[in-house]
Amino acid sequence: MEKIEHIGIAVKDLEVSNPLFAKLLGVPHYKMEEVASEGVKTSFFKSGPNKIELLEATNPESPIAKFLEKKGEGIHHVAFAVDDIVSELARLKQEGFQILNETPKKGADNKLVAFLHPKGTNGVLVELCQEIKEG
Amino acid sequence: MEKIEHIGIAVKDLEVSNPLFAKLLGVPHYKMEEVASEGVKTSFFKSGPNKIELLEATNPESPIAKFLEKKGEGIHHVAFAVDDIVSELARLKQEGFQILNETPKKGADNKLVAFLHPKGTNGVLVELCQEIKEG
Repeated sequence: MEKIEHIGIAVKDLEVSNPLFAKLLGVPHYKMEEVASEGVKTSFFKSGPNKIELLEATNPESPIAKFLEKKGEGIHHVAFAVDDIVSELARLKQEGFQILNETPKKGADNKLVAFLHPKGTNGVLVELCQEIKEG
Repeated sequence: MEKIEHIGIAVKDLEVSNPLFAKLLGVPHYKMEEVASEGVKTSFFKSGPNKIELLEATNPESPIAKFLEKKGEGIHHVAFAVDDIVSELARLKQEGFQILNETPKKGADNKLVAFLHPKGTNGVLVELCQEIKEG
C-alpha cells in the first residue's frame, strides 16, 4: 500500500456537493466521470498527494443508491494505491481477507480496482487501485 | 488543506485490530497513544504520506463508544493537514461551515485539532490538524 489514493464520499446530488467541497478544500473539482457499469457519477478533487472522490448514484440499483438509503451521505470507502494489484490481492487473500473482485475491474480515473469485504476489515470498505499505464 | 493527514477508524478492540491492520497495510503500527480528555486510545499506522488512526473507546461516554453503539465499527473521520489551523478555521467559518471547536484543542500525535459539524459536510466528520512545532 503506497498511500491513501482517495476517499470516496457518497452524496445525493453532485450539483450541491461540488461547490460545497470546493469551499471546504479550497480548490474546485478537476474532473467528473461517469462509471456506467457501477451506476455512479464521480467528481474528483485534489488534496496534495491525495484525492477526494464524490459519488452520486445514477440509478436505484447502484451500490451508492443502496448506501445512501441505508446510511445516508458520508464516507463510503478508502482507496489505497498499489503498484501491482494482482500480487497485492494475492498477498491479502493469503492473509485471510475476503476479496470482492478476484479479477480487478476498470474503475474511474484510469484505474484498475478491487474491493475487500468490509466484514473482514472492521467495517471499512477498502479499495485497492493501480494506475493503468499507457502502451 | 495540504493533504489527507489521516483517516480515523472506530474499532472495538485494538488488540484485535492492530494485527488486522498490520496485515492489511503490510506494516505494524508505529505508536499507541491515549487521549484521556477524549476517552480514546489510538494506534497509528503509516501509509506513505498518510496515516491510519485506529480509535478504541476507554469509557462509555467517549464519542467513539457512542459512534460504535450507533453505527458499529468503521471510518469515523477524515483529517486534513493544515499549516495554520486558526486562519483555516476562520476561512471555513466565513464560508458557512459549522466549527465544533472554535479554539483548537490538543489531539493525538502532537497536533492541534478542530472538527467541523458533519451536518454541513454531507455527513463527513472533518478534522483539521496542525503539527505543534517545538520551541
